[in-house]
Amino acid sequence: MPLVIDIAVAKTNKYASRESGDTVEIVERPGGGLSVVMADGQGSGRAAKTLSMLVTAKVSALIKEGVRDGACARAANDFLFAMRNGQVSATLDILSVDLKTQTVVITRNGDTASIVLNGGRTEVTRGAERPLGLHARTRPWTAEMPIGAGLRVILASDGVINAGARGGLPVFDLARLLESVEPDASVTTLVDLILGTSIERDGFKPRDDMSVVALTLDEHAQTALIRRMRAEVPLP
Amino acid sequence: MPLVIDIAVAKTNKYASRESGDTVEIVERPGGGLSVVMADGQGSGRAAKTLSMLVTAKVSALIKEGVRDGACARAANDFLFAMRNGQVSATLDILSVDLKTQTVVITRNGDTASIVLNGGRTEVTRGAERPLGLHARTRPWTAEMPIGAGLRVILASDGVINAGARGGLPVFDLARLLESVEPDASVTTLVDLILGTSIERDGFKPRDDMSVVALTLDEHAQTALIRRMRAEVPLP
Repeated sequence: MPLVIDIAVAKTNKYASRESGDTVEIVERPGGGLSVVMADGQGSGRAAKTLSMLVTAKVSALIKEGVRDGACARAANDFLFAMRNGQVSATLDILSVDLKTQTVVITRNGDTASIVLNGGRTEVTRGAERPLGLHARTRPWTAEMPIGAGLRVILASDGVINAGARGGLPVFDLARLLESVEPDASVTTLVDLILGTSIERDGFKPRDDMSVVALTLDEHAQTALIRRMRAEVPLP
Repeated sequence: MPLVIDIAVAKTNKYASRESGDTVEIVERPGGGLSVVMADGQGSGRAAKTLSMLVTAKVSALIKEGVRDGACARAANDFLFAMRNGQVSATLDILSVDLKTQTVVITRNGDTASIVLNGGRTEVTRGAERPLGLHARTRPWTAEMPIGAGLRVILASDGVINAGARGGLPVFDLARLLESVEPDASVTTLVDLILGTSIERDGFKPRDDMSVVALTLDEHAQTALIRRMRAEVPLP
């Protein structure tokens, strides 16, 4: 049976900050498939937002030109390093479903977390190579796995991972939280659960920008193939 | 009360064609707000898809650099004309919620349709300026209106507008279809209704690629501002 690629993103901003410094884009790959690009700019507010948009714009433009993800991350590092002289940093996460190679590819720089749920196993990776922009030669952390029904991948920004930490709570155990979810939970359920729990852990006043991405691959039995996209932005 | 921007996209491909030649992207505007970029490349299948991706990639990169929509459309025309010597054409629709100007801006080239529902009035515009790529100097059709609760904008590609025409049905009356919908219908309801009706009008075998975009602006009473994105792609 053919697969359906399902991706959801949920984000919120630091409490009392008008704007999130994180940017997340979803782009179509020219060879088939989708990529999610997430960047977290150093600091918060307007400057961080401009920085993270600069990084995601560069990466998504390269992806649309057919450039492989690892080269996009390297290019984004070199671009940021050249433009800002190593003075500012950004984290970058690329999560791709590549139909050319029939794989899911994760490419990361910085202190975010990725969680892969595959065939009953849960694998959490926190922190992965240094962030972009600070050094002339930075390489990304990468992981690649064959596409298949039941695969789930979660990306969480540092605001999510560190939620509750400054309030004295034990480390946020994302793997345990995810194990409490039904295996066929929708991407929306996954991102809502993680973001909701993070906001609660910070006493409902997020101490940092928070972004969560979820990807699921499942079988479908649709005959008319309808692609859907949705974006919902509540203004302050 | 503050507003929530809600955008939905639904697309399907020509019957028995593996790939839609339409591309739709949703991008964040650097000054605040969102833009939807829709392009329909001449023909169908792989070549049309590559062409429409080239156009949306160019336009979305410029939008992210802060370029105004009309200049993006002009640039995309000149780019396509220069690269392909006036031999291929593409339609382009840009629908923006611009928080800098506090307006909704529609920028169009080609034989698509836009429908604006505002304060009980329904305004349908079909065909608007010539498509991109064929002439050295092409300008877009534009419309601009203040943002406000209750505003709805629909974009439909030519595959939707012409659905049923070759089967001998009367012209697809999108305005009448939309008037049958509750005024508070969600963006998902709107795109599903229009795409579903189009597919039915073509006898469940779409004669062309079909894409529908819906934008709604409504008031919200959320305290925690959570942005959401979603993409769902069933594979053949």
